[in-house]
Amino acid sequence: MHKNIAIIEGDGIGPEVTKQSIRVLNAIAETFNHSFEYTYTLMGADAIDKTGSPLPDETLEVCLKSDGILFGAIGHPKYDNDPTAKVRPEQGLLKLRKSLGLFANIRPVTTYPALHHLSPLKTKNIEDVDFIIYRELTGGIYFGNKLTNEEGTQSSDDCTYTADEISRITHLAFKAAQKRRKKLTLVDKANVLETSRLWRKVVKEIAAEYPDVTLDFLFVDNAAMQIILNPKQFDVVLTENMFGDIISDEASVISGSLGLLPSASVGNGVALFEPIHGSYPQAAGLDIANPIGSILSAAMLLDHFNLTEEANLVREAVTWTLQSGFVTKDIDPVNSYFTSTVGELISDYV
Amino acid sequence: MHKNIAIIEGDGIGPEVTKQSIRVLNAIAETFNHSFEYTYTLMGADAIDKTGSPLPDETLEVCLKSDGILFGAIGHPKYDNDPTAKVRPEQGLLKLRKSLGLFANIRPVTTYPALHHLSPLKTKNIEDVDFIIYRELTGGIYFGNKLTNEEGTQSSDDCTYTADEISRITHLAFKAAQKRRKKLTLVDKANVLETSRLWRKVVKEIAAEYPDVTLDFLFVDNAAMQIILNPKQFDVVLTENMFGDIISDEASVISGSLGLLPSASVGNGVALFEPIHGSYPQAAGLDIANPIGSILSAAMLLDHFNLTEEANLVREAVTWTLQSGFVTKDIDPVNSYFTSTVGELISDYV
Ligand SMILES: CC(C)[C@H](C(=O)O)[C@@H](O)C(=O)O
Ligand SMILES: CC(C)[C@H](C(=O)O)[C@@H](O)C(=O)O
Repeated sequence: MHKNIAIIEGDGIGPEVTKQSIRVLNAIAETFNHSFEYTYTLMGADAIDKTGSPLPDETLEVCLKSDGILFGAIGHPKYDNDPTAKVRPEQGLLKLRKSLGLFANIRPVTTYPALHHLSPLKTKNIEDVDFIIYRELTGGIYFGNKLTNEEGTQSSDDCTYTADEISRITHLAFKAAQKRRKKLTLVDKANVLETSRLWRKVVKEIAAEYPDVTLDFLFVDNAAMQIILNPKQFDVVLTENMFGDIISDEASVISGSLGLLPSASVGNGVALFEPIHGSYPQAAGLDIANPIGSILSAAMLLDHFNLTEEANLVREAVTWTLQSGFVTKDIDPVNSYFTSTVGELISDYV
Repeated sequence: MHKNIAIIEGDGIGPEVTKQSIRVLNAIAETFNHSFEYTYTLMGADAIDKTGSPLPDETLEVCLKSDGILFGAIGHPKYDNDPTAKVRPEQGLLKLRKSLGLFANIRPVTTYPALHHLSPLKTKNIEDVDFIIYRELTGGIYFGNKLTNEEGTQSSDDCTYTADEISRITHLAFKAAQKRRKKLTLVDKANVLETSRLWRKVVKEIAAEYPDVTLDFLFVDNAAMQIILNPKQFDVVLTENMFGDIISDEASVISGSLGLLPSASVGNGVALFEPIHGSYPQAAGLDIANPIGSILSAAMLLDHFNLTEEANLVREAVTWTLQSGFVTKDIDPVNSYFTSTVGELISDYV
């Protein structure tokens, strides 16, 4: 099988973790006789520094022509505390999501028994946690009108949703639930927000088409509690963009190791895969960042190509390094291996 | 000292927990020779059932004439899953907040060593946690324009903030930080939202007036992680309405006992005090709900009257019952006491 993969290394630790994923993908290609062709392209602070734009047109073209995108991380502190900055790295990612129609961000939340001791939660609360968050990614307050008056004394953000925007991700989430434990939880704030009431209405209507899936509802404030109090109760969680941003990051602490978690952003065409961790600029270039979030994102990319055996082999290799203690500093500060060593061990295993 | 206290028992377990607080306030009045006069008034599902309105005009009048409001809980499931309901209990609370100008919701997050075993978090992560959340309560997306088109296929919620709305709560938060560990963390989403960038600008300007307080910033998604990963880092957390709703509920799980946590909503005039737990309709009337969240809210009411000694005595009584194991079912399912018994023991101690 031949595939064109767009590579966006991005900012901070993005380049060094992505490098390890490519190593693993190359090992897969060799073992299974595939050919993966990589096209490197720019986004984020890196792109601003080099081209002035957080998402150069060329990047969009490369992505559109690709079969899948592997992305590292975005963001640099020099832009964060400057409210007047006109160009921000994150704009690149948001524009990419919108332009490619990546309307669903999918984040599995799983735990590794070997790493239970790293979780801030008690082991009995996290054993057997296995759920998946479907976050709407191209609508809501992220993409609504943004206004500030001339005097700079009043600002506003508009949050709009259409039934169609809700419907397309809802179908994906129900289908995922059908292949899992058949439970879907919609997280919203229907006691306050008009958009949440539209979500509830549309999701309820669609539920009729999936009679084997149980649907329930949680207000987002309650969901923020339940994710910590009793994460086992969840199977598939569906929510809008802003709530999804918050609760999916919250849920990522359960495993005790942010550095391990992958994500996929999908839509009608090409899909994008990225670790959930950020650009972590303090660690950039030190060869200490955990490459597994990126490597498991590459496994999701393989799934997306329907290369299930290949994807599972990558996951097996990851589990093997974790069990063997071949881990980066975030997992074991005392006996730690470099980013590049962990990447090498995983690709060797493959 | 004579004080007029408005009592809104509200829905679900509201009446039974509020009753215990009044018992405790009466004991305080007797011991310290104060006179507290209570005026009962309606809000929420209870008010809809009795008057058709979630906030009758009379309730507003009673509250405005009072020196402080003690409130139980709001909400009933019969309204939650009906997106077409025109009248909702929560509208009463939102309108009350707005009408009384209760622009700051204040929630202390503390833990009790006697209850560490109940927390979902590992003890080492929660020891010495002591922070306080200042949530803006009368602005943002809660009170913005809400629209749905005629076909019911598109909805929107507007989120607007003015510099003045941000400024007044920011001063309160900085003043609170000055009396504590002198650290203020602004939680926002300035990499995406225009309103967050206004928050950052205004808060930075005001920071110059409080040079002894260290100011830092966290994106809300990161804050949702940090609250669980390392809650000790926080002293005073300041945030807008919707983010505050989510992260304050999230933070409430740290203690392991939602039923214990109080809150205050303050503004320029009268203030309102309520436990953070909800109406918990399944437990209504069973005499099993934990009255301590309400009783500690009454202690915050006493603080508000500058009755510091009295407030501290209530807190001492609460700590004594917790240490002695005189607790409701949520704290100890095996050896549990009734709501009314716990209330009686606390008022007897006082
Ligand atoms: C970088 C930022 C704009 C982005 C978001 O808020 O969507 C990130 O937090 C994420 O979750 O992918
Ligand atoms: C009942 C609801 C409207 C309310 C809110 O969202 O503000 C509640 O969750 C709270 O935090 O007091």
